[in-house]
Amino acid sequence: KKIAILPGDGIGREVVEAAAQVLKQIEASFDHSFTFEYADIGGGAVDDYDDPLPAHTLDICKRSDAILLGAVGGPAWDHLPGEKRPEKGLLRIRKELGLFANLRPVRSFKSLLHSSPLREEVIDGVDVMIVRELTGGLYFGEPRERRTIDGEEAAVDTLVYKKSEIRRIVQQAFEIARLRTQKVISVDKANVLESSRLWRETAEETAKDYPDVELEHMLVDNAAMQIMYDPKKLDVIVTENMFGDILSDEASMLTGSLGMLPSASMGSEKPALYEPVHGSAPDIAGQGTANPLATIASSAMMLKYSFGLQRESDVVEEAIEQVLSEGLLPADLSRDKTSAASTEEVTKAVCTHIA
Amino acid sequence: KKIAILPGDGIGREVVEAAAQVLKQIEASFDHSFTFEYADIGGGAVDDYDDPLPAHTLDICKRSDAILLGAVGGPAWDHLPGEKRPEKGLLRIRKELGLFANLRPVRSFKSLLHSSPLREEVIDGVDVMIVRELTGGLYFGEPRERRTIDGEEAAVDTLVYKKSEIRRIVQQAFEIARLRTQKVISVDKANVLESSRLWRETAEETAKDYPDVELEHMLVDNAAMQIMYDPKKLDVIVTENMFGDILSDEASMLTGSLGMLPSASMGSEKPALYEPVHGSAPDIAGQGTANPLATIASSAMMLKYSFGLQRESDVVEEAIEQVLSEGLLPADLSRDKTSAASTEEVTKAVCTHIA
Ligand SMILES: CC(C)[C@H](C(=O)O)[C@@H](O)C(=O)O
Ligand SMILES: CC(C)[C@H](C(=O)O)[C@@H](O)C(=O)O
Repeated sequence: KKIAILPGDGIGREVVEAAAQVLKQIEASFDHSFTFEYADIGGGAVDDYDDPLPAHTLDICKRSDAILLGAVGGPAWDHLPGEKRPEKGLLRIRKELGLFANLRPVRSFKSLLHSSPLREEVIDGVDVMIVRELTGGLYFGEPRERRTIDGEEAAVDTLVYKKSEIRRIVQQAFEIARLRTQKVISVDKANVLESSRLWRETAEETAKDYPDVELEHMLVDNAAMQIMYDPKKLDVIVTENMFGDILSDEASMLTGSLGMLPSASMGSEKPALYEPVHGSAPDIAGQGTANPLATIASSAMMLKYSFGLQRESDVVEEAIEQVLSEGLLPADLSRDKTSAASTEEVTKAVCTHIA
Repeated sequence: KKIAILPGDGIGREVVEAAAQVLKQIEASFDHSFTFEYADIGGGAVDDYDDPLPAHTLDICKRSDAILLGAVGGPAWDHLPGEKRPEKGLLRIRKELGLFANLRPVRSFKSLLHSSPLREEVIDGVDVMIVRELTGGLYFGEPRERRTIDGEEAAVDTLVYKKSEIRRIVQQAFEIARLRTQKVISVDKANVLESSRLWRETAEETAKDYPDVELEHMLVDNAAMQIMYDPKKLDVIVTENMFGDILSDEASMLTGSLGMLPSASMGSEKPALYEPVHGSAPDIAGQGTANPLATIASSAMMLKYSFGLQRESDVVEEAIEQVLSEGLLPADLSRDKTSAASTEEVTKAVCTHIA
């Protein structure tokens, strides 16, 4: 299996290295053979190639069976114009590879119940899957531009969805729901937005093909509330790109830290892309303190979804739980920052549990 | 002082009645003279006048010194086309009266610390003011339509901001920050959206006129997280229409219930409009169990902002705190729903404390 590794910027490099070590441990322990090919994306790629997604990176990705990505961006590139921004590399790779379905599982960990701002009884047992549309909506619609309106400067973004774009992501959510509790909550703002009304209609239509799955609609403002109010009632949530961005970061609080949340982005063809939900955290980059678990958990998703290695995937997830239950907590999860475990310590502990 | 009362739909009628009683108590206790004029808005107005914002309602509002609104909408009107929907009445009154600044204060109440899903130590002492832009952005931009794209049905909404629209709301936030802790957090998605880049630039420019106030920028996904992670660090948050909608509903969890959150919407001219953040809650309408405190607190904002009656406003807020500390909790705030206080009991208790 060929794995393309795109470290990106900031802590992206550190966490991707950690996940690569874990994959190598899986290789050794289960007698698989993975090859790793590194490529540039984001701010570093802008510095070296004047392009946040150089052509050779895209080539390497297309020839791979799966992609592992760190994170992109940082203040060093904040002044650049739109096309040169690191984030544009991320948006473009999603679009170029047709990765329209972004899966963001959020589960509570027994040994992390204390590190969430939410009460333990509220989060204990939470198991939510946010299915975010990833290649449409406000992040991609045209026009997106500066314009003169009433003689003054204005800016425009466009939220556009085609029916087929909505249908395929809703289908994905229904398929996932079949493997879980047969319930899907579709989140929109149908009381105001036209795109949300099309979203809701299409979700209803699609639901007819899944009579075994229950569909509920929820307005996005209400969803932002329910995620905190009673997250145990939620299971599969499907929503458009920006709502999914906001809600999944909010939902990270259910586990205590964004540092725990993995994601998988897939399309109708190979390869899929795996990345932590967190960003490049430039403020702590290079210190060896980043929490690698979101990226390690992303590689567990890769083993399962791209390689069909369910058992190996489970082993990685169990190793994560074991490390946490031993109290080996990286800085973002530990109250006492001075005794926090380093990226390397956490990674080694995960590998030891796998071996 | 002339007050226009727009009950709207569902529990809107009940909570507005409660707030009107409280205003009458203030009238009596402090020797003021208020006149109340009732008018229709929302679903009821569609039923009676085929228009969610009939012309006579707008007239009454324009002739008033302040407006108190309940809530609009409900499943009975969900099938109607865009222009006939109850919510459209709300959007139109905001636009017609130029109410671009929506203030949504979120404070924790000592006696409600137990009813939030968040830990008491996380929310104790929270005092946030969300300043939401209310007449621009995705909720109003054109085009907003169905369209054929690549031979299939599609839907489009448009996010558009003019510089002047951004400047005036950011100014409002800076003015408010001067009366608080001299800090403003401006929330956007400047790493992706063009409108957010204009937002950020304009916020920076405006900040030059307020050298005494500190400006920080935060991405909306991060803000959704920070509101839960450490809300005590936040003070004034200014953001565009839809982000403000989502974040303020999320922030309601800091007080334990949407049933506590008031709002004020103002423009550069009179009158301002006061309404609870919650909706019409059709599921509990007519049962006399709705929590009237968000609307009563909205009338306290009216006393302060529209009538300059700071002392009277404080008295209402203190009465709310006293009622809560006596343990007289409406259903949304009490664990034991059977012993919950009714709308009327809560309202009477507030009035008794004022008298
Ligand atoms: C960096 C940014 C473009 C990206 C997004 O919003 O999609 C990130 O926040 C994410 O959620 O993956
Ligand atoms: C009813 C709806 C149009 C409205 C909005 O989103 O503005 C409501 O959610 C609010 O926040 O006041």
